[in-house]
Amino acid sequence: MRREELIGFVGVDIGGQSTRVGIFDQRGRLKVISFPTEGNFRTECEAIVTAIKKLNVDRVRRIGVGSPGPLDWKKRLVYDTPNLPWRKVNFGLLEEMSGWSVLLDNDANVAGLGEATMGRGRGKRFIAGFTLGTGIGHFQVKDGRIYHGRLDVEAGHQILDPQGPKCNCGQRGCLEAFVSAVAIERRYGKPPHLLNDPKAWKEIAYRLAQGLVNVAVHTSPDVLILTGGMLARGRLLFDPLRRYYEAMLKVYPPAYRPPVLAAQLGDKAGVVGAIVLAKVGHSD
Amino acid sequence: MRREELIGFVGVDIGGQSTRVGIFDQRGRLKVISFPTEGNFRTECEAIVTAIKKLNVDRVRRIGVGSPGPLDWKKRLVYDTPNLPWRKVNFGLLEEMSGWSVLLDNDANVAGLGEATMGRGRGKRFIAGFTLGTGIGHFQVKDGRIYHGRLDVEAGHQILDPQGPKCNCGQRGCLEAFVSAVAIERRYGKPPHLLNDPKAWKEIAYRLAQGLVNVAVHTSPDVLILTGGMLARGRLLFDPLRRYYEAMLKVYPPAYRPPVLAAQLGDKAGVVGAIVLAKVGHSD
Repeated sequence: MRREELIGFVGVDIGGQSTRVGIFDQRGRLKVISFPTEGNFRTECEAIVTAIKKLNVDRVRRIGVGSPGPLDWKKRLVYDTPNLPWRKVNFGLLEEMSGWSVLLDNDANVAGLGEATMGRGRGKRFIAGFTLGTGIGHFQVKDGRIYHGRLDVEAGHQILDPQGPKCNCGQRGCLEAFVSAVAIERRYGKPPHLLNDPKAWKEIAYRLAQGLVNVAVHTSPDVLILTGGMLARGRLLFDPLRRYYEAMLKVYPPAYRPPVLAAQLGDKAGVVGAIVLAKVGHSD
Repeated sequence: MRREELIGFVGVDIGGQSTRVGIFDQRGRLKVISFPTEGNFRTECEAIVTAIKKLNVDRVRRIGVGSPGPLDWKKRLVYDTPNLPWRKVNFGLLEEMSGWSVLLDNDANVAGLGEATMGRGRGKRFIAGFTLGTGIGHFQVKDGRIYHGRLDVEAGHQILDPQGPKCNCGQRGCLEAFVSAVAIERRYGKPPHLLNDPKAWKEIAYRLAQGLVNVAVHTSPDVLILTGGMLARGRLLFDPLRRYYEAMLKVYPPAYRPPVLAAQLGDKAGVVGAIVLAKVGHSD
């Protein structure tokens, strides 16, 4: 997708701490305004509208919003989420207040859409991957659009070992229960950015490799993309990860084994993905 | 899908032992002719054409073929497969010889398409499941069509335990390496139809449950369907399977946990699915 096609589409990336509102300007540059996420949902919507006006868009065509879930993207409802101060809010309000139509999806899907179309997955048809953070978000992007099943796909909660550690979702031995920042801190006593023991990272990489192989056989994508803060650990994570992944995935011929790639857009994936969502819409 | 919509579409289900050719007649009844699969591919194509003529179709609209893989459905190539006597054959030949256009897909996908549209999944939008046999085939059917990624999806080769038993695919600890008929015979010394030990079936069900949970979180389907000869074992398999599955899958709210259902069409799923394939075509 070319940046010029995205002019007029606004992306909103909502996080527990801050909200980013962004557009591509006439020269194809990403312009972002951010502000602390408001405790009151109506005030938040007003702040989003104010930011859009400050960005000086000639004509707003549509707004895409990425938010932590659980949420219902069809109804544009965000349910109770521990990471946001609101309780069951509807982004129809933003549409009402602004007069612009609004699309909503969850933060992992939206970041994945950004990477898939404007980042590391550019030019590829099927992209899948994980956001490695407090939890493990999962995304699948097909033909430039976010894939949903009946609900969101949640491969961060695939079961790697039915007798493994308890996960916050109520299951046991989920990928998230092995490799999320919370799981790492619980197991090794340190958050990922302070953990320097290569043996620990090998264990983490081993489980992440198993999880990536399973995404590969369930979706057969062109590439697998990892995004999120943990990527800053670089080779400590990626060296053993690629070794284990290559040793584990054999069922497809070598040319069809999707490479595991690090995201390119960093913390801009969410706002870029929200802009792309505004442009391409949902697939159903 | 109504049977009347399928009149004129021919389904061919190719197995190592026999080939079935079927249609729905004007009164909506399935008519099937079967013959031993020919050792020579050209003779096989001639036999298929002869069977179609015997079925007395007013006007043949298209032929759908399900075959053991590995195969390339776009090129209509079947590669070397241990279960068929041919080596790298192209179903373009059947099209040439008959003058009718031919679509090809693998046997698990085609059986899944049959169950999804005319069997247990009728009226549902997203269906996924396994064929339990010599190997573990996997299918995903979305909006009435077979889903493919870059290659076929192969969740029978998801890794349940990276240190588990070796699989014929070259990996370790695949679902197939735990629950296929071959794996069962290797582990318990008896093929599934002679295995009567409830403890053994509990172990098999435990791994199959883990595999089904993982399909659920990767695809979020409406229902999960199991098909294949092993279903004849009934409650020996299904009682512990449903117990383990319900105990393991928690991440989705109860109303969104796909039920695990037994197929309805039995050994007709393949020929029915091939008829449906002929009608609806591939999704891309």
